[in-house]
Amino acid sequence: MITLASDFGTPYPAAMKGVLLRRTDARLVDVGHDFPRHDVRTAAFWLRETLPYFPPATHLVVVDPGVGTDRAAIAIRARDHTLVGPDNGVLLPAARRLAGDGALEISVVDEEALEPVVPAGETAPDPGEGPKSNTFHGRDVFAPTAAAVHESDGLDSLSLLTPTTDPVDLELPTAALEDGRAVGEVLVVDDFGNAITNVPGEFLKARERVVANGEPVPVGDTFEAVPAGERLATVGSHGYVELDVNRGRGEAAFDLAVGDRVVLESAD
Amino acid sequence: MITLASDFGTPYPAAMKGVLLRRTDARLVDVGHDFPRHDVRTAAFWLRETLPYFPPATHLVVVDPGVGTDRAAIAIRARDHTLVGPDNGVLLPAARRLAGDGALEISVVDEEALEPVVPAGETAPDPGEGPKSNTFHGRDVFAPTAAAVHESDGLDSLSLLTPTTDPVDLELPTAALEDGRAVGEVLVVDDFGNAITNVPGEFLKARERVVANGEPVPVGDTFEAVPAGERLATVGSHGYVELDVNRGRGEAAFDLAVGDRVVLESAD
Amino acid sequence: MITLASDFGTPYPAAMKGVLLRRTDARLVDVGHDFPRHDVRTAAFWLRETLPYFPPATHLVVVDPGVGTDRAAIAIRARDHTLVGPDNGVLLPAARRLAGDGALEISVVDEEALEPVVPAGETAPDPGEGPKSNTFHGRDVFAPTAAAVHESDGLDSLSLLTPTTDPVDLELPTAALEDGRAVGEVLVVDDFGNAITNVPGEFLKARERVVANGEPVPVGDTFEAVPAGERLATVGSHGYVELDVNRGRGEAAFDLAVGDRVVLESAD
Repeated sequence: MITLASDFGTPYPAAMKGVLLRRTDARLVDVGHDFPRHDVRTAAFWLRETLPYFPPATHLVVVDPGVGTDRAAIAIRARDHTLVGPDNGVLLPAARRLAGDGALEISVVDEEALEPVVPAGETAPDPGEGPKSNTFHGRDVFAPTAAAVHESDGLDSLSLLTPTTDPVDLELPTAALEDGRAVGEVLVVDDFGNAITNVPGEFLKARERVVANGEPVPVGDTFEAVPAGERLATVGSHGYVELDVNRGRGEAAFDLAVGDRVVLESAD
Repeated sequence: MITLASDFGTPYPAAMKGVLLRRTDARLVDVGHDFPRHDVRTAAFWLRETLPYFPPATHLVVVDPGVGTDRAAIAIRARDHTLVGPDNGVLLPAARRLAGDGALEISVVDEEALEPVVPAGETAPDPGEGPKSNTFHGRDVFAPTAAAVHESDGLDSLSLLTPTTDPVDLELPTAALEDGRAVGEVLVVDDFGNAITNVPGEFLKARERVVANGEPVPVGDTFEAVPAGERLATVGSHGYVELDVNRGRGEAAFDLAVGDRVVLESAD
Repeated sequence: MITLASDFGTPYPAAMKGVLLRRTDARLVDVGHDFPRHDVRTAAFWLRETLPYFPPATHLVVVDPGVGTDRAAIAIRARDHTLVGPDNGVLLPAARRLAGDGALEISVVDEEALEPVVPAGETAPDPGEGPKSNTFHGRDVFAPTAAAVHESDGLDSLSLLTPTTDPVDLELPTAALEDGRAVGEVLVVDDFGNAITNVPGEFLKARERVVANGEPVPVGDTFEAVPAGERLATVGSHGYVELDVNRGRGEAAFDLAVGDRVVLESAD
């Protein structure tokens, strides 16, 4: 199984699928292709929250504002999952969660060693004269790598991979908790408009209301704990405090965007 | 085969697929994940119009504004199709159509009897201490139920299901027809902007024009019966009268939204 | 394998998939369903740039503003690929590229010879009394044709196909090149906002800057060749000159839309 995630919209993911399906019979599953453009951190969050629900798989990720520069392509083994994508940190939060207390094996891809991508109706280029684009490594580098990884007997067996110990890292920010007060930020806004913070859900435990950025808000176990259109704080499906509106958009009602500071305080 | 429909956008459907694919090898097919948020009636319409074209399948549906409340999860057997979703009526119009003149078998899901969803890198909870969220039953309840239903030898064999006779029902409204006049409403607006009413297409039979909410409109067999940009009434692919614009958006030209009253009269 | 491309949005593609899956076990792969509405030329471009990356397949394409008129349904054999869609030119640019220097075999579909589409819960119509809609041939004509083609031993064996030699053609416009000057146009704007012209990428070779519609613009090998938010000309993944903004939208910065004239001149 190969999952695909990108900020590509349509139809670039289809070209990646075509390349994959020439090289593997794997099942393909889309994680999503409308992640915010060029936004490595948001993609890293969603991958960390989504990939652990999959069975062992190869995960192909292309959110890659540095395409065509000398940033490397990497593959990461995390227990029985493998992630393939650009060396910009986007894979790391998911890889660490997938590995649990296990170690990560991280390799750099030798792009020159990949079998070239040759569209139908054209002939293969001479070695070293590949048609690799500078703007679409999803098709020309990452999909071929994911296919090679998926079809291999393990990363060790692939000569195109070289172990590395210093990938570009990315840590999602954590909230500070003290004296019944949490200082965090909005990690992402989901498609429902829920403002998902990095404050652990435990903060809401046994509270009936909190003060969020100065304003009192009821705490609800479910969206329907408040009338339609009303604001609430709740523990979302990722285990974090979310600032939401029942059947509405929390980001608008709370006037919050990704990265905005969120201070939660006791209302008692 | 398992179909998936929701109002989730991206990437929540992927978490559902991951849960499914840990438990079944079934083919997964998306019906759509951008149904209007929290809009049970519109989803019910589209499911009724789409699911009957599929071969026998398990249909997983999550349009669920009541998530986390005491609304039940249900499964419905309709001939050789099975539908799984929240007990809010969203499944019923499709189930009745799938059943034809057959009966429906409706069951309530015992959520505590589901095998817990455990993400990679974590350990399974103690019984009764499951990590079920209050906001993402698509992942934690409905996907596990759909997998169990799909892998079973029939609903009777599943101890997690208990027959019920009083599900929440939902009937899509029907138009009133009398004396060459039809009084109905806009059921949905599709992605093309076509305003699909609940007036049966037969109303247009043998007419060259009708009066729609007071204004005369040509009747066309096809969009191209009128010049690009012009309005027409036609019989859509669901068998209902649609108020459309050739290569344009009928909803805007007719100033109609979902639920708006539509009166069609003879223009002769 | 069957690929699907349309301007249908949601959920009409699902009805096509249902029809297909009743008739074939083929793998289904979406090329995309949010192509610009009724825009045959843009779809033709994307198909030409995307389908050649796939292994041999049946490609089902429905961008069909003439649905329900007497425009024919056609099938085209291009080497080991087959394309199915409306006879409006949308298939031709892709078919020619897939065929390389091979010939195209083009056939018209006898729609009356197709096995009727009968939704679950209904009975098959009498011969000649099929329920074919005038507005959804994707479901009622093209999907049944694609399934029949995919399941056949070759187009010759299908009695529902009749060879034709005069399909509606469509040629994507080419740029004029002379004396270090290129006069072309914007072929499409992609989801990133890149304005993709029809000027071959060679035009940028060995240049550090060009004059685009009168304004000097740096030439970059990659988006990152200029700071975030800055404009550049680059060779896109389709081999054409693109007018882009690093991490931004070129169409807005250059004030360009599809079909707009683009004049590139030497800046030296």
